[in-house]
Amino acid sequence: MRIVPCTLFAHLKKLIHTPTMAKSKFEYVRTFETEEKLLPNSWIVVRIDGRAFHQFSTKHNFKKPNDSNALALMNKAASVVMNEFKDISLCYGQSDEYSFVLRKDTTLYNRRAPKIMTYINSLFSASYVFYWSHFFKETKLKHPPVFDARVILYPSDENLRDYLSWRQADCHINNLYNTTFWALVLKGGLTNAEAEKRLSGTLSSDKNEILFSEFGTNYNNEPEMFKKGTILLRKRVKNPKHGKTRVVVLPFHEDLIQDNFWERNSEILGIKSAQHYEWPENTPLPLLVLSQLHLDPDRDEELTLIEDTT
Amino acid sequence: MRIVPCTLFAHLKKLIHTPTMAKSKFEYVRTFETEEKLLPNSWIVVRIDGRAFHQFSTKHNFKKPNDSNALALMNKAASVVMNEFKDISLCYGQSDEYSFVLRKDTTLYNRRAPKIMTYINSLFSASYVFYWSHFFKETKLKHPPVFDARVILYPSDENLRDYLSWRQADCHINNLYNTTFWALVLKGGLTNAEAEKRLSGTLSSDKNEILFSEFGTNYNNEPEMFKKGTILLRKRVKNPKHGKTRVVVLPFHEDLIQDNFWERNSEILGIKSAQHYEWPENTPLPLLVLSQLHLDPDRDEELTLIEDTT
Amino acid sequence: MRIVPCTLFAHLKKLIHTPTMAKSKFEYVRTFETEEKLLPNSWIVVRIDGRAFHQFSTKHNFKKPNDSNALALMNKAASVVMNEFKDISLCYGQSDEYSFVLRKDTTLYNRRAPKIMTYINSLFSASYVFYWSHFFKETKLKHPPVFDARVILYPSDENLRDYLSWRQADCHINNLYNTTFWALVLKGGLTNAEAEKRLSGTLSSDKNEILFSEFGTNYNNEPEMFKKGTILLRKRVKNPKHGKTRVVVLPFHEDLIQDNFWERNSEILGIKSAQHYEWPENTPLPLLVLSQLHLDPDRDEELTLIEDTT
Amino acid sequence: MRIVPCTLFAHLKKLIHTPTMAKSKFEYVRTFETEEKLLPNSWIVVRIDGRAFHQFSTKHNFKKPNDSNALALMNKAASVVMNEFKDISLCYGQSDEYSFVLRKDTTLYNRRAPKIMTYINSLFSASYVFYWSHFFKETKLKHPPVFDARVILYPSDENLRDYLSWRQADCHINNLYNTTFWALVLKGGLTNAEAEKRLSGTLSSDKNEILFSEFGTNYNNEPEMFKKGTILLRKRVKNPKHGKTRVVVLPFHEDLIQDNFWERNSEILGIKSAQHYEWPENTPLPLLVLSQLHLDPDRDEELTLIEDTT
Repeated sequence: MRIVPCTLFAHLKKLIHTPTMAKSKFEYVRTFETEEKLLPNSWIVVRIDGRAFHQFSTKHNFKKPNDSNALALMNKAASVVMNEFKDISLCYGQSDEYSFVLRKDTTLYNRRAPKIMTYINSLFSASYVFYWSHFFKETKLKHPPVFDARVILYPSDENLRDYLSWRQADCHINNLYNTTFWALVLKGGLTNAEAEKRLSGTLSSDKNEILFSEFGTNYNNEPEMFKKGTILLRKRVKNPKHGKTRVVVLPFHEDLIQDNFWERNSEILGIKSAQHYEWPENTPLPLLVLSQLHLDPDRDEELTLIEDTT
Repeated sequence: MRIVPCTLFAHLKKLIHTPTMAKSKFEYVRTFETEEKLLPNSWIVVRIDGRAFHQFSTKHNFKKPNDSNALALMNKAASVVMNEFKDISLCYGQSDEYSFVLRKDTTLYNRRAPKIMTYINSLFSASYVFYWSHFFKETKLKHPPVFDARVILYPSDENLRDYLSWRQADCHINNLYNTTFWALVLKGGLTNAEAEKRLSGTLSSDKNEILFSEFGTNYNNEPEMFKKGTILLRKRVKNPKHGKTRVVVLPFHEDLIQDNFWERNSEILGIKSAQHYEWPENTPLPLLVLSQLHLDPDRDEELTLIEDTT
Repeated sequence: MRIVPCTLFAHLKKLIHTPTMAKSKFEYVRTFETEEKLLPNSWIVVRIDGRAFHQFSTKHNFKKPNDSNALALMNKAASVVMNEFKDISLCYGQSDEYSFVLRKDTTLYNRRAPKIMTYINSLFSASYVFYWSHFFKETKLKHPPVFDARVILYPSDENLRDYLSWRQADCHINNLYNTTFWALVLKGGLTNAEAEKRLSGTLSSDKNEILFSEFGTNYNNEPEMFKKGTILLRKRVKNPKHGKTRVVVLPFHEDLIQDNFWERNSEILGIKSAQHYEWPENTPLPLLVLSQLHLDPDRDEELTLIEDTT
Repeated sequence: MRIVPCTLFAHLKKLIHTPTMAKSKFEYVRTFETEEKLLPNSWIVVRIDGRAFHQFSTKHNFKKPNDSNALALMNKAASVVMNEFKDISLCYGQSDEYSFVLRKDTTLYNRRAPKIMTYINSLFSASYVFYWSHFFKETKLKHPPVFDARVILYPSDENLRDYLSWRQADCHINNLYNTTFWALVLKGGLTNAEAEKRLSGTLSSDKNEILFSEFGTNYNNEPEMFKKGTILLRKRVKNPKHGKTRVVVLPFHEDLIQDNFWERNSEILGIKSAQHYEWPENTPLPLLVLSQLHLDPDRDEELTLIEDTT
């Protein structure tokens, strides 16, 4: 809550004339602070991860193996972060984690790692609570969630793609496991321990087979968001109301391991501005986008973007 | 949301047998992660600081120069953090900042700086939103707040004390300035610019004199929380209901620059467990404490402490 | 001087049974050590730089503006380092500094920055003293020289080339200045201060003109080593004695700012093994190469390569 | 070899007017450099360690288990470093390693870790070669030695003492082992493997017993330098020639684990200037000290201290 009228000069003068001169005597402690700057010309990835979220999900009765509302809330919180920090060019989320990719040439906060990492994490955490009731009408939030964050540098485009492929492969593996596990438990009547034992050592093909032959589930028909996670990209879209275009954050549930994802969205690795995106006709715009276009059907709040005055 | 039944061994097997072997191919990207560990046997201070909070306070009509509710919410969020991380032995807050002091011998998260810094910041940010409505009944939260965090090491007790003295001296200097500034503006009818000019170059004694002679305000009688900020300590207190003692987080608004604060609370530098504290008779326990003793008059929620299963 | 017969197991046993158990009691101090690893997939540059070398050069009567022997000794010391650490693919030296470029995929010492930096610097410093008398027959070394070292990461090939171009441009600028300065002083009879004043604010073209019109010196005809510095590359050359090829460290004095240097030596950025190099006929192999081929005319020592057993 | 007459201003001008403007175009690469500063108010220890010194010692026929000349050369090189960097208040050496302790309040090179670490290591390495022939008259140095260096912070006096105790306990354990091992091999006629087997699992008392009963050696009578290593301290001593006092680096071979060492030399932890030291009468001053007092019997060189002009 820095006071506006206090200019630096006045501030310094004030210090000098303070009777005890106390503050200036103690100010040497600032020299103990460090300032870790991230290597230039490298992709910066900030990954946040929920703490003890298995417990959190149980306590809030999240649907198993996937809770669409919980995932939508994660996506909403990530979109708030992406809208706030324009140098984030891609986000990828699955389960209780989200990765934020900053342009390799960003100079955000002089590339100071702690600043970047903690601002993203703080805004995500606060947004998760802020928007909880939009996604969980009945279930009250019982306690604040906690996320950690880490920052990772990737020097080449290939390294960055491999990182994201790693997270998406992780999503696939976990989701296939979880889908089969919970089918055995919820539909098959097995205990958790029995289901775990049953799946021990099975291949992907085995799990697909169990799902299909025992539960009539074709894994390929499972929702894309569950199988692929969510990719957030900044695109220029047409406002369906008046036809003007605007840059918004769009969710995608696609395979990002293949080359064609990166060809279709070449602005990311090319460090270009947002490209036009034609939303498929006859497909309704997702809620996440509607709210950005101020077309939210029952919006009762408006996210005023925060401007940094520091 | 790590799945419980997935043991490491099963996980590895699964990886090996996955048709595409995709994940293991990408997993090398983990080697790009770093693990910055904080020097042992040094005090760890995490300071969080609101981003663009002047704007935030204006938008939410915070009272000038101090808003008791806003400060109480800061204290509440900090107490949630202190209750969650038992190795935090003291917190100090003023304005939109809060410092968390961890025992110099803590092994929390193996002293990994990013983990410690982001967990504290995330829980604080989420709690601020979570408890907003408890402190602001009428004013709706318009958007999620954002805090950054930094971590600082202090090798000696003297360095730690000087750090806290620095923050408290900063509180004093800013509060005296702000109290006088807003008296000139709100009661004296000056514009912001006029008030700033009037105060330019003044000493502490000048500001005290303006307050006293022009507005009949004796600065010494201003609330201690405004002048000194808030110190949170962990103390063992008697539950007034049934007389049993319990360790709770207590708020103090005292001078921590003098030696006697550290003598009275010798467990902090001595790295001892919480001491008994006799709450002054005839003084009601603060709300912050009542809720911890489950004596909150109109509590409609219960903060279930999160247990880390990782 | 780790003792060979001491196996880890025996060592541990010994510790446990030592009467005082002293060592194990103190061993916790190892946890205060840090291990800074350099980001993978990035070019590692170690640059060493002489400390107070102006003074050092005066004391040892180095020729002005350039002392060929001093430069040859620098090149010799760098070639020892390059022969010892096979992952150094290029060195660039000028004046009292030398840059060592390690392959971007090196795993030398697990990419631990201090190890890499201090080994290179130590071997360079020791070699400088070791080979002093080979280059300075008359002048005795008066005291040991000192070099510092720093390590820098460059994520892209372009960044690496720009770094080397920066050092070569620095060499050019300093050498043109120094050549003109010392011409004015040594041949023109100006004092140092007069020469400095004369050159203040002059362009490169002005300095070329002074050299040519006043001293009959065409700067373009100055020795390439002075104008361009020295590039060390690892190449496969034919031993003129018996015709077998061997990989040796070769000195070049070329423009490395232009693309064709990198095309001719494409193995560097391509991270390939040493290429064959046809030494220009009728040009004698430099001494630096002869010694590596054991053709040193008056060699009285043989550098036995050190093998690391750790 | 920074040129003296080149002032910063002239340098900048020069840059701007250079035809190609090449250098300024590349200079952005400097932003990739980092500047790691060491935490204030903490003891800084730099430990250097020989690389592959077992091999080095074999090649140069070092006496087993200890070579007095090799140890004296290590001490000489360390004393050069200690004389150069006045903020080093204690050095401790054993075998092929040396630890340099810098005052906890040093501001040497702004506490930049790489500068401190590499300067000490470079000067030590260069001095080792420079003084080789003073200690090995017959044996020629076959190749330059290599040392690595690391920097470690210790926040408290106790931590520092424990670090040094750890190194001295290591010296004791290794020396007792090596003394017994080489007695078995050199006097007892065992092979290396037999000696190793014989010592496997033995206690200190067993080794003492073997030495005494089989070889008539009382380990307690072994030279103190072998058993305790070498401590270098800065003390004010009287020049025996003319009686004036001077601060010199003195070698000690004492137990530094006990309190009385630190009481006798209270200036170290007290961060005071060098104390007077009365050299025991009838004991000749060691060579290391004589050379500092310019009383070296056959000195043929004088180490001119280097002054840093940067």
